Amino acid sequence: MTRQLKLGAFLFTPGNHAGGWRHPAAIPETDMDFALYAKLAQTAERGKLDAVFFQDTAAIADDTLADGGRNGYARVSWLEPVTLIAALAAVTRDIGLISTATTSYNEPYHVARKFASIDHISGGRAGWNLVTSQIENESGNFGRDQHLEHAARYERAGEFYDVVRGLWDGWEDGALLRDKDSAIYFDTAKVHRLDHRGRHFRVRGPLNVARSPQGRPVVSQAGSSPAGRDLAARSADLVFTAAVTLDEAREFYADVKTRTAAHGRNPDHIKILPGLLPIVGRSEAEAHEKYQQLLDLLPADLGSKPINRLAGELDLSKYPLDGPLPDLPPNNSALGRQKLLVDLARRDNLTIRQLAKHFACAGGHRFIYGTPARIADEMQHWLDNDGADGFNLMFPHFPAPLEEFVDLVVPELQRRGIFRTAYEGRTLRENLGIPRPASPHAAR
Amino acid sequence: MTRQLKLGAFLFTPGNHAGGWRHPAAIPETDMDFALYAKLAQTAERGKLDAVFFQDTAAIADDTLADGGRNGYARVSWLEPVTLIAALAAVTRDIGLISTATTSYNEPYHVARKFASIDHISGGRAGWNLVTSQIENESGNFGRDQHLEHAARYERAGEFYDVVRGLWDGWEDGALLRDKDSAIYFDTAKVHRLDHRGRHFRVRGPLNVARSPQGRPVVSQAGSSPAGRDLAARSADLVFTAAVTLDEAREFYADVKTRTAAHGRNPDHIKILPGLLPIVGRSEAEAHEKYQQLLDLLPADLGSKPINRLAGELDLSKYPLDGPLPDLPPNNSALGRQKLLVDLARRDNLTIRQLAKHFACAGGHRFIYGTPARIADEMQHWLDNDGADGFNLMFPHFPAPLEEFVDLVVPELQRRGIFRTAYEGRTLRENLGIPRPASPHAAR
Repeated sequence: MTRQLKLGAFLFTPGNHAGGWRHPAAIPETDMDFALYAKLAQTAERGKLDAVFFQDTAAIADDTLADGGRNGYARVSWLEPVTLIAALAAVTRDIGLISTATTSYNEPYHVARKFASIDHISGGRAGWNLVTSQIENESGNFGRDQHLEHAARYERAGEFYDVVRGLWDGWEDGALLRDKDSAIYFDTAKVHRLDHRGRHFRVRGPLNVARSPQGRPVVSQAGSSPAGRDLAARSADLVFTAAVTLDEAREFYADVKTRTAAHGRNPDHIKILPGLLPIVGRSEAEAHEKYQQLLDLLPADLGSKPINRLAGELDLSKYPLDGPLPDLPPNNSALGRQKLLVDLARRDNLTIRQLAKHFACAGGHRFIYGTPARIADEMQHWLDNDGADGFNLMFPHFPAPLEEFVDLVVPELQRRGIFRTAYEGRTLRENLGIPRPASPHAAR
Repeated sequence: MTRQLKLGAFLFTPGNHAGGWRHPAAIPETDMDFALYAKLAQTAERGKLDAVFFQDTAAIADDTLADGGRNGYARVSWLEPVTLIAALAAVTRDIGLISTATTSYNEPYHVARKFASIDHISGGRAGWNLVTSQIENESGNFGRDQHLEHAARYERAGEFYDVVRGLWDGWEDGALLRDKDSAIYFDTAKVHRLDHRGRHFRVRGPLNVARSPQGRPVVSQAGSSPAGRDLAARSADLVFTAAVTLDEAREFYADVKTRTAAHGRNPDHIKILPGLLPIVGRSEAEAHEKYQQLLDLLPADLGSKPINRLAGELDLSKYPLDGPLPDLPPNNSALGRQKLLVDLARRDNLTIRQLAKHFACAGGHRFIYGTPARIADEMQHWLDNDGADGFNLMFPHFPAPLEEFVDLVVPELQRRGIFRTAYEGRTLRENLGIPRPASPHAAR
């Protein structure tokens, strides 16, 4: 059987292109309107996509706050994604629902509980995107003067994951008996305390949510630094990554699959999805015109803004826009994405202005404009050459580009036999082809 | 115009009566089945109730864990209520959705954000029930060896509330412009940092969720100690309380309304709802039979279990079941409920066994069995005598007793003109008759 793509829809409102929300067809009110989010998820479900995926930060970026969203992503107010996917569970049936939650400013008991609860509510469609927080000023909303340092953040994240997983595993299947005759509600032998005592957390357990339909909700991750890759290899079912060239994608893919095997896991059970922003035209000319129209929507005074944050402590605005990218000091918040920027600059010899425009199109992710056939070609090429198990699809604005992908590209992928025509199962794990884990207590 | 009752439905699965889930008509699977919860909320909405209300603890009580739920409340696994009300928002239209979240083991930024988000998702129907945590062993799930001491808990709760409110108020109405022509997404003059630096929290803000339909989600509270009453008077829109006699209810009602006025607030804008568990029969005989049937479902070896927790460090099981309640040392977890127990014991000269049975029926709250007319009489009597603005209705099991209340008692209340026949407004505040607050920044 032909290997098939796994596809997520990255619903980053009001759009993944910094000028996208200004497009005449854009409905930027998607950021706060649940009915519009519901329609997006239903559209993705009509296209048989594996999951909708929600990024998150627990703060507004300072640059956005300062200029009214004028020069970068207009990411200032959006529905909190954990509550959002819970609500979307009630208005969808098959599609996976993945929300971000940070390990840096949360408690594992809350995270384990909320995602287990959503897994029950959705009948097995919940996913947790584990992040360690990307933007510095989240720290200020949680009593800290600065963001945890990169290595400490990953150490905490690893222990956080262990606790969450241990809480999920504390319940065996079939523990709830609800036996009216004997008056026994649950089998005490199938509910286990965790009694975790680690460096960052002490958590007794058990969780007050029974084992969920997926056994454990799907875990996704997006770290691309070595520490991020290793945590993903140890713990993730899905990896969302940024790769602009097939070579970069192949290197990442091979490395994460190898690391996964080194952790004693089956490398087929971790699915790697690079980001991809498709701009679909019925002809190549139409697609190019659409791409150009989006570029024209970027403000003339865009400057270096879309890449300033990746430069970390270096003030990029002091460098000539039409000059080369200077050497950057390591950036605590997003090491992996910073490397992507530097690699792109060096490879194509791009100026700061060109880099900023590039990053404004898809946040540093890959974008393609073209006909459905050309976009399908590119997706297939990466699938066939070990660059990807699928893609996390990004959209310049909402809702039209998602609808175009579903109506034009999905049928092309289906014709080629590289994408499903019906959901394989009832749960996100079943659709991804990742087995449902048993509680380790059950094996005893 | 006649004053009307405000009514909440307290959906404490699998039931508020310790033996209720064993009733032949009970469906205890309500604890984990979203479709069943949805049906409960829709039934309450059919009855024009103001809100459904979800209690919570972030732990399983030790006694429940030890005996499989046999001798007390079978409260071991339930859907996490913040995610649950988000999902319920998508399948209801008018009814308020109130979830508990503890100030002792949360961060105010997360709580402010999630409830604001649900307020948007639901079109203005969200409520936050602020608690300081009732059961000791929550602490073990959050890295603490013991629960915060009562006064410290309330101090933290007060500051927590201030931060949440400040974050909600950081956005003025109309801040989101989304102006495609000027490329200005939001009005920076209408989004304000909080920069709170207090004893327990440092929070910069602003929240990344725009001002919600209710301005601020409804805040409810259930503390009955003096510290609890004072916090409610300063901050709550709704107060859920336990009172067995009209005298107790009147004392509480007058005290909280007086305290509210002392905080410069309109006492009409805080609604006081004692808990009430109605057992409805078509005749008095049928009602009594139903009450007796429920008592018979309590295990023979119930012992003192339903009241052990309120006794705190004193081991009640060492006292004769048919003897009087000994003097109790102050109980850190639930001072107010402990007082209720002691008052009841002293007033009616009840034995430990009798008290345990009483508390097993409605967790110490008031219960009535009778015809719809008799139950309506009692409700009206408290409403007319300044004992209550309405009630938080409790049910021995689900779903039948809620359906009976809606089908039999609600029409009786409506006939008397003391309950609505249609929702007055679109938001929970509008239905409660509590004004929508403006951001204090807007008044400048």
